Amino acid sequence: MLILASQSPRRRELLARAGLSFEVRPPHIEEVRRAGESAESYVVRLARGKALAAAAAASDWVVGADTTVVVDEAILEKPRSDDDAVRMLRLLSGRWHEVLTGVCLRRGGETWAACESTRVHFLSMSDSEIAAYVATGEPADKAGAYAIQGIASRYIDRVEGCYLNVVGLPVSRLWRLLKDAGYSPALG
Amino acid sequence: MLILASQSPRRRELLARAGLSFEVRPPHIEEVRRAGESAESYVVRLARGKALAAAAAASDWVVGADTTVVVDEAILEKPRSDDDAVRMLRLLSGRWHEVLTGVCLRRGGETWAACESTRVHFLSMSDSEIAAYVATGEPADKAGAYAIQGIASRYIDRVEGCYLNVVGLPVSRLWRLLKDAGYSPALG
Repeated sequence: MLILASQSPRRRELLARAGLSFEVRPPHIEEVRRAGESAESYVVRLARGKALAAAAAASDWVVGADTTVVVDEAILEKPRSDDDAVRMLRLLSGRWHEVLTGVCLRRGGETWAACESTRVHFLSMSDSEIAAYVATGEPADKAGAYAIQGIASRYIDRVEGCYLNVVGLPVSRLWRLLKDAGYSPALG
Repeated sequence: MLILASQSPRRRELLARAGLSFEVRPPHIEEVRRAGESAESYVVRLARGKALAAAAAASDWVVGADTTVVVDEAILEKPRSDDDAVRMLRLLSGRWHEVLTGVCLRRGGETWAACESTRVHFLSMSDSEIAAYVATGEPADKAGAYAIQGIASRYIDRVEGCYLNVVGLPVSRLWRLLKDAGYSPALG
């Protein structure tokens, strides 16, 4: 059985749209970045931590993932407040940034992990556009204070790399990890 | 009022996710490419034709769109059969191709049109993977015989440009057309 160790409704939707059958078991782990830890190391460590934290049988395949937004070497996680969301969106407006997702597949004690990076370009947003967007509530629980597949789609004109990575799960990368590790469900 | 002149459920979903209020009025127009007509001219002509064909009041904003897949100068429209879908997917496997969407905004007799282009990369698919994918039925009603947001997401590892353009509607481009033309709904 495939197990998604995540409480994200976006990840659930992506896996379902990819035609995979799975069960959701949200893990409970601390998400605190260590001093000096790179964004890449951080998201892979959290993805692995989530995959290991979920209860699973020895024959189950467990998927953990963690997504973060990087701009100017700074990591943008979920905003702490509306003001924090405004601050993040001002940082992102009118330029490129990077989104990293760590993804980890686990079976028993064995793990396969990867980090996928995608570049994302925002059109310029005026202060009133940013305020109106934050007022919709969409930024509140999203890394970097935006949902690429939501209202923010009005302002995102280009990506380079895996788009679903920005939504929260690099599906084609996960699919390759699954195939390489020997997983082969019926397609459908 | 905003009117979507399209029968595509994907376009409807994208506009709704972008937070826009609209009504759907599918147009009925002939979709036949003229001899020597470029892919870009073709999709823009169809987008304009759809926007003009939908019934609308003089103050309504009407959106028409048409999407096509281009590989090796060939245009891939919706497959005529499962065999045709297999042929298209073999053409796309393991390489880049281009997706063009023509989008047209109309108000009264005035139109604003654009063509958005996105590059899409498929991982290599084996013949058995292609057969299994076609058997899911997903390719049947899709230009180029795939749905980037569906099961095909397993095999698409990169895009360059607007992702939603590949789903069927370049939302940020449409948003700019709307703003430039003077449309300004409340965000919500």
